Amino acid sequence: MKVTVSRKAHFNAAHRLFRPDWSDEKNAQVFGKCSNPNYHGHNYELIVSVTGEIDPETGFVIDMKDLKELIKTEVDEPFDHKNLNEEVPEFKNLNPTAENIAVVIFDKLRPHITSAHELSVTLYETPRNFVSYSG
Amino acid sequence: MKVTVSRKAHFNAAHRLFRPDWSDEKNAQVFGKCSNPNYHGHNYELIVSVTGEIDPETGFVIDMKDLKELIKTEVDEPFDHKNLNEEVPEFKNLNPTAENIAVVIFDKLRPHITSAHELSVTLYETPRNFVSYSG
Amino acid sequence: MKVTVSRKAHFNAAHRLFRPDWSDEKNAQVFGKCSNPNYHGHNYELIVSVTGEIDPETGFVIDMKDLKELIKTEVDEPFDHKNLNEEVPEFKNLNPTAENIAVVIFDKLRPHITSAHELSVTLYETPRNFVSYSG
Amino acid sequence: MKVTVSRKAHFNAAHRLFRPDWSDEKNAQVFGKCSNPNYHGHNYELIVSVTGEIDPETGFVIDMKDLKELIKTEVDEPFDHKNLNEEVPEFKNLNPTAENIAVVIFDKLRPHITSAHELSVTLYETPRNFVSYSG
Amino acid sequence: MKVTVSRKAHFNAAHRLFRPDWSDEKNAQVFGKCSNPNYHGHNYELIVSVTGEIDPETGFVIDMKDLKELIKTEVDEPFDHKNLNEEVPEFKNLNPTAENIAVVIFDKLRPHITSAHELSVTLYETPRNFVSYSG
Amino acid sequence: MKVTVSRKAHFNAAHRLFRPDWSDEKNAQVFGKCSNPNYHGHNYELIVSVTGEIDPETGFVIDMKDLKELIKTEVDEPFDHKNLNEEVPEFKNLNPTAENIAVVIFDKLRPHITSAHELSVTLYETPRNFVSYSG
Repeated sequence: MKVTVSRKAHFNAAHRLFRPDWSDEKNAQVFGKCSNPNYHGHNYELIVSVTGEIDPETGFVIDMKDLKELIKTEVDEPFDHKNLNEEVPEFKNLNPTAENIAVVIFDKLRPHITSAHELSVTLYETPRNFVSYSG
Repeated sequence: MKVTVSRKAHFNAAHRLFRPDWSDEKNAQVFGKCSNPNYHGHNYELIVSVTGEIDPETGFVIDMKDLKELIKTEVDEPFDHKNLNEEVPEFKNLNPTAENIAVVIFDKLRPHITSAHELSVTLYETPRNFVSYSG
Repeated sequence: MKVTVSRKAHFNAAHRLFRPDWSDEKNAQVFGKCSNPNYHGHNYELIVSVTGEIDPETGFVIDMKDLKELIKTEVDEPFDHKNLNEEVPEFKNLNPTAENIAVVIFDKLRPHITSAHELSVTLYETPRNFVSYSG
Repeated sequence: MKVTVSRKAHFNAAHRLFRPDWSDEKNAQVFGKCSNPNYHGHNYELIVSVTGEIDPETGFVIDMKDLKELIKTEVDEPFDHKNLNEEVPEFKNLNPTAENIAVVIFDKLRPHITSAHELSVTLYETPRNFVSYSG
Repeated sequence: MKVTVSRKAHFNAAHRLFRPDWSDEKNAQVFGKCSNPNYHGHNYELIVSVTGEIDPETGFVIDMKDLKELIKTEVDEPFDHKNLNEEVPEFKNLNPTAENIAVVIFDKLRPHITSAHELSVTLYETPRNFVSYSG
Repeated sequence: MKVTVSRKAHFNAAHRLFRPDWSDEKNAQVFGKCSNPNYHGHNYELIVSVTGEIDPETGFVIDMKDLKELIKTEVDEPFDHKNLNEEVPEFKNLNPTAENIAVVIFDKLRPHITSAHELSVTLYETPRNFVSYSG
C-alpha cells in the first residue's frame, strides 16, 4: 500500500549555462542567450516526492514538517538568492542545466531519506520548462 | 495503446490529525497544530486518473461525464462541507491524514471502475502538499 | 508616482457560517451546508496590497520582508490551523463570511501601515470564490 | 541516470465529438453537447516529456530550444486556430476526443525523437480534464 | 464599508472574429487566423465581481450561491459548448471579440443585480489574454 | 463604454538590489540577501493592461497581436536573459526593485500607446510578490 507524498518549495537563483573548459564563443554557440556571461535567473519551483508505506501509527509516509525542514536545510539555504555557478560548490565544474540541478538536489536529499522510501525530484525552471529525476 | 484520463474535482472539509486511542497531549506532541481539537480545514483538490485502452467505438477510455458523476456521488456528496473526523464514517477510527484520505477515496472509487482499468488518486491538501495512491 | 505592492500569504482554518443569536434551524436555512455545526474548512489565500510613493532611497514602497513579517504576526499566527468561530476573538459575535474575514484582516493590518499608504486586502476562500476590501 | 525533460505549449482549436459513420442523432445521444454540429472549442495545453540520459557534453537530455521548435512545427502550426474535424487530416475519420488527439500528437512527434529517448504526451482539454499517452 | 465579491466560472465555445458585412478577404486581412471560416475555440474563464455594502444580517454582500446560479442561467447555459457566432443571438451582428463578449455578459447580468451594487466582468479568452468591463 | 484589455508576457533575468553610491556593507544591511553581489534572478511575469473605448469597426480596444509585438520589442528583447543591473541601461543608476522595474516598463510602453488609452503594468517578481503601476 505505497503512497507518494509530495511537497512544493521554491528558490530564486542566478545562473548561466556554461562549461569552464569551453571558450565563451563555444558556450554562446551551444547554449545561446542562456550562456550570457552576466547571468540571468529563475524562480525555481521544486517538488520533492517520497514514496513508501503508510506508517500505521501516524498515518504518514513521512511527516511533511520533516520533509519541509529537510528541503529548507539542503536546498533553500544553500541555493536561494545565490548564483549557482559562482556560489554553489556542486556547480563549480558542472553545468547548471535544469537536468543537472535536479540530479544535484536528488543526491543531496537521498542520504536523508530512509532507504525503504523512493525519492523523486521535479524542478520547474520556468512554468513552461521542467525536469524530473528519480535516481 | 493505454491512455490515462484524469478529472479534477474539489471539496472543502474540516479535520484534525487525531488518534482517538491517544491522549490529546500525545496527539498534540506528534501532530502539532494539525491536531487542534477545534479542527482546521482545507480546500482539497482531487485528481482521479483512469488508465486503459481507448474504446474504438467512442474514442474514450472512460466517458468524462460518467467519471465526473462518480466522483460527485462517491466523494463530493459524502465529504464536501463535512467534518471528516466526525461525519465521515471511514475516519471514525482512521486518522484523516492526506495519505489515509487518498486511500479511502481510492477504495470507494475502485469497485465502480472496471477491473480492466487502472485507477490512481492524487489529493492536494494544500497547493504545497499532495499525495498519490494507485492501489 | 504611486505604485501598489502586493504580497501573497495563506492560512488553513475551519469555520461555519453561523449567527449565535439565531437557531441552528435558521442558520441552516439561510447558510445551507456552510452552516454545518461540525464545521468545514478552507485553504485561505490572502493578498495584501499597499499603495504609495516609491521611497527614492530604497526603491521600495514598503519592504516586502516587513510586509511578510506583519502578515505573519497579525494573520498567520492568530488564524492558521484555527477554528475561526471558536478561537479567533473577532468572530465571537461576527459571522466569519469571506467578507467579514477580509474586513477583520484589513482592520488588524491598517494600524501597522503608515497613513500615507493605502491598504487593500483580497481573500480567496476557494480558488473560485474571493473578496476584496479597501477600507 | 535517466531524467525526464518537459515542455509546455498550447493551441486553441474548435472541434466536436463526432463519428461521420453515425447519424447526428446517434452522435448527440452518445456525445451529448460535445457533439454540437456547430462546434465548440478549447484552449488545449500540451506537455511533451522526453526521458533519457543526460548528455555529459551539454548537460541536456534534449535541447529545450529544439523541443520547443519541434512542437511548433508538428503541433502548433497544423493545429492552432484550426477546426480539428474539418482542417486536420488525422481527424478526417477519427473522433477528436482528448484521448485520440494525444495519440495523434504522440505519433507525429515520435519519429523526430531519437529512439534512445522515451516520449510522453499530456494534453489538457480544460484545466479540469486531461489525458496522458506514452506509446 | 464596500466589499467586492467575486465568483469564477467557465464555458467552452467556438467562435471566429468576423463581420458579416465584410468579405472573407477583408475579415482575414484584419483578423488573421482568428477569422478562420471553420472556427476555432477557447476555454473562457469568467470572473464576475459584485461590489456593495455587507448585509449586517448575513455578513454577505451577495449570496455566492445566488451569484453562481445567476451565472449558470445567464452565461453557462446559453454559451457553453456553443458556437458564439452561429448560436448566440447577441453575436448575430456583433463580432465576438473578448471585448464584446465581456460587454454582452455584463449587459445580461446587470438587470439581475440590485442597482445598489456595482458589477464588473473579467473574461479570460486564454490564460494570456483577458479583458475587463465595469459598465 | 471603456474596456480593459490585458496581455501576459514573461522574461527571465538576473538582478541584485544595489545602489552604486552605497558601500556593499550598506547595501547588504538594507537589502539583505537580495543584494548578493553575485546576483540572483527571477522569472518575471508581466501583465500589460490597456483601457479605452471599443473600436466599433473591429470590436477591439487594441489589437492583441500589436500589444504582444510591442511587449516583445520594448520588454522581452531588452530584458530577457539579461542581467538588469549590468546590461539594461535604465538600471545603470536605478535600483532594480520590482517597483522601479514596473515604472521603467511603463515608461517604455507609454509612448507607443495612444494617449486616448490608459496604461497599467503589473509585474510578478515571484508568484508571491508583485507590483502594479498606472502612471
